[in-house]
Amino acid sequence: MNKEIFMKLLSAREFKAVRSILNVMNAVDIASILSELEDKELALAFRLIPKDKAADVFANMNNTMQSKLVEMFTEKELKAILDELFLDDTVDMLEELPANLVTRILDAVDKDTRAQINVILNYPEDSAGSIMTTEYVSFKRTMTVGEAIAHIKETGIHKETIYTCYVLDSRKLVGIVSAKDLLTSDDDERIEDIMETEIISVNTHTDKEEVAKMLSKYDLLAIPVLDGENYMVGIVTVDDAMDVMEEEATEDITKMAAMNPSEKPYFETSVWGHAKNRILWLLVLMLSATITGSILTHYEDAFQAIPLLVSFIPMLMDTGGNCGTQSSTLIIRGLALDEIHFRDIFRVMFKEFRISLIVGVILAAANGVRILIMYNSIKMAVVIALSLMATIVISKLIGCVLPLLAKKVHLDPAIMAAPLITTLVDTCSVMVYFAIATQVFNL
Amino acid sequence: MNKEIFMKLLSAREFKAVRSILNVMNAVDIASILSELEDKELALAFRLIPKDKAADVFANMNNTMQSKLVEMFTEKELKAILDELFLDDTVDMLEELPANLVTRILDAVDKDTRAQINVILNYPEDSAGSIMTTEYVSFKRTMTVGEAIAHIKETGIHKETIYTCYVLDSRKLVGIVSAKDLLTSDDDERIEDIMETEIISVNTHTDKEEVAKMLSKYDLLAIPVLDGENYMVGIVTVDDAMDVMEEEATEDITKMAAMNPSEKPYFETSVWGHAKNRILWLLVLMLSATITGSILTHYEDAFQAIPLLVSFIPMLMDTGGNCGTQSSTLIIRGLALDEIHFRDIFRVMFKEFRISLIVGVILAAANGVRILIMYNSIKMAVVIALSLMATIVISKLIGCVLPLLAKKVHLDPAIMAAPLITTLVDTCSVMVYFAIATQVFNL
Repeated sequence: MNKEIFMKLLSAREFKAVRSILNVMNAVDIASILSELEDKELALAFRLIPKDKAADVFANMNNTMQSKLVEMFTEKELKAILDELFLDDTVDMLEELPANLVTRILDAVDKDTRAQINVILNYPEDSAGSIMTTEYVSFKRTMTVGEAIAHIKETGIHKETIYTCYVLDSRKLVGIVSAKDLLTSDDDERIEDIMETEIISVNTHTDKEEVAKMLSKYDLLAIPVLDGENYMVGIVTVDDAMDVMEEEATEDITKMAAMNPSEKPYFETSVWGHAKNRILWLLVLMLSATITGSILTHYEDAFQAIPLLVSFIPMLMDTGGNCGTQSSTLIIRGLALDEIHFRDIFRVMFKEFRISLIVGVILAAANGVRILIMYNSIKMAVVIALSLMATIVISKLIGCVLPLLAKKVHLDPAIMAAPLITTLVDTCSVMVYFAIATQVFNL
Repeated sequence: MNKEIFMKLLSAREFKAVRSILNVMNAVDIASILSELEDKELALAFRLIPKDKAADVFANMNNTMQSKLVEMFTEKELKAILDELFLDDTVDMLEELPANLVTRILDAVDKDTRAQINVILNYPEDSAGSIMTTEYVSFKRTMTVGEAIAHIKETGIHKETIYTCYVLDSRKLVGIVSAKDLLTSDDDERIEDIMETEIISVNTHTDKEEVAKMLSKYDLLAIPVLDGENYMVGIVTVDDAMDVMEEEATEDITKMAAMNPSEKPYFETSVWGHAKNRILWLLVLMLSATITGSILTHYEDAFQAIPLLVSFIPMLMDTGGNCGTQSSTLIIRGLALDEIHFRDIFRVMFKEFRISLIVGVILAAANGVRILIMYNSIKMAVVIALSLMATIVISKLIGCVLPLLAKKVHLDPAIMAAPLITTLVDTCSVMVYFAIATQVFNL
């Protein structure tokens, strides 16, 4: 659907046409079009959405738009939307809304829902409890398949998923039945005879990244969440797991570029917000870079005698930084995907050492030849080749060891990425370089 | 399950116990334990897995282990596994196996399956066609719900998913029915009356990253794949989409660290493979860094006169690189998540400009004060503060513009990341620095 056409029809007050369009459009796409409207038009357009789609559209809007709508809604409209929203979407929204709107929403839902919302809101941020929904289908073990299907017909329509159903015995989870099992079994079979008893579950306090990894690893559509006493309290569904995976990747990438991750997309974060997320690391890294600078001042005599020495500093620093970044990036990602563990540290170091020898020889040779040709100085060629070789080996080792050590002491390995590695490697490369140069040139 | 206990039982030939353990374990976990066994033990253990689980375990093993098993299987065993494997898993495996094993497998499957496999193998790598499965449930529009459920009972057990079923009319997709619709509708309702006709689909040539994004965006469990003439040819399921998302994030992160992405995990890639993936970019970046070096040689007189100038080079280069990296990283990620588009270029530039002013003023002030105190030179403080300010503004602008331009000309924005940005920004910062220094100090 073309956004411009939609907006033209809306501002021309062609309500019939707008309603027909909204009728055939997907809720996600409607949310995306509506998010570009002005407040007044937004309220108007939202009220033209077919009733059975409105909650779905609302759930797919960003927090800014949701706030605006909640403010505009009458009590009745608010209640209607909240009744249709899945509980986890309601909680997601509450976590971001200003306090006055939160109160308004908690007033509008029934007592039971309010209690459930409060429970979920109390779980620690980023835990399974905080992203789960308490709306799932449960069976008794003595039910027949026919009774179970009848139970879904009665209660299932408002549950977030009916594809994985849970068999409970005094609130404890004893089995899992998939909709596939129900559809392919005879009506008079008993649930306990067809249920799966190998149960994969998480705890309310499990980190949400871990939850997403488990859903992905075991190819599940939903995973049950148990509380401290092993009572079943909710489920996390695969669509939420996909969102978590995307968020976590963004968070890692942001940290790897020496920034505090922002909760919001680029344009929704203010200029001040961006500056705040970036400045601390820049200050820290700037100060460490001055260390490299003060090392340089020790070698004033050297580059007074041979000024050409200075011109190789950027090349050595950059190459060292890049080599270190390559290693640290692979290790950080490997740690995140559980492909590499701290116990592999020596295996990793040995591998990186061999890689750095190959890479080092090639780069040193290329540079040595270039310098021989350009400056016709064997000594300078030797100094640069040796320095490059040493820099590359050191930087690859630093690059692979630091993320592993960070993991060991429960720091986020992602902070041991390009910027920090580069700054550390710089110091090493400058020191090695001038140590070698003063030796070779007898300075 | 403890791996050591398992291996001890196996080497003690306690087959009964091993079988019992395998009976209650999850297929994914069995695959993980088996992948640490020696060839001989592997064959033994695999044959102890309950028949209904063996294919699932096999699908969850890595290619090296799959190759080993295929070599060890008798014709009969191979046929039994292949009959149970989902088609997309078979194709995944074929794409990685050596040619002689591929032939063996293609000989073992029936003619029909072989034809389907060949079709999928012919789609371009990374396309929807190459990751889809052709095993899905289809209905006729005139069926009743009762007939549809009976149809699933008959044919559905071997389909990869039954949760989204497709209504076809002479091979064209006319509607979608979810298992939820089936379970909550009356048996005598007609499929065409309950089917959803707003269909979200992809084409066989759609990039798999795009496919994964659509499944995530629309919260789908499966998405239909249509060919050039709009005939339905397969589906991509959410579990595969999650794998694609993870792979794509890894690929982006690898590229952002100036490496060619590897198809295999860290330890499965050889030392030579790693070196090859890293060396090209290192050479390119090293050569560009020598440009910065040769600019420095132009200012020999300047740092002969004031040697202290040299000691600020690392700080300026590093800060510029880090600032550029921060901006480019956010833009690259925003582009990948469709939050930022090329049309936003001026909005982005204006935002980054304002951010760089704030960041620049703070860093320049911090450094100016430090230099005043340490060296008691107002001129030097001014030179460094101005150079920092200029470097930060330039690097943030370069950092945000280059990924956007790359996207515009259909290059992968991820290559415009830390290493390349750093190298480019270095040249600028050195030039700006000495331009300002020669002015202020009248060199």
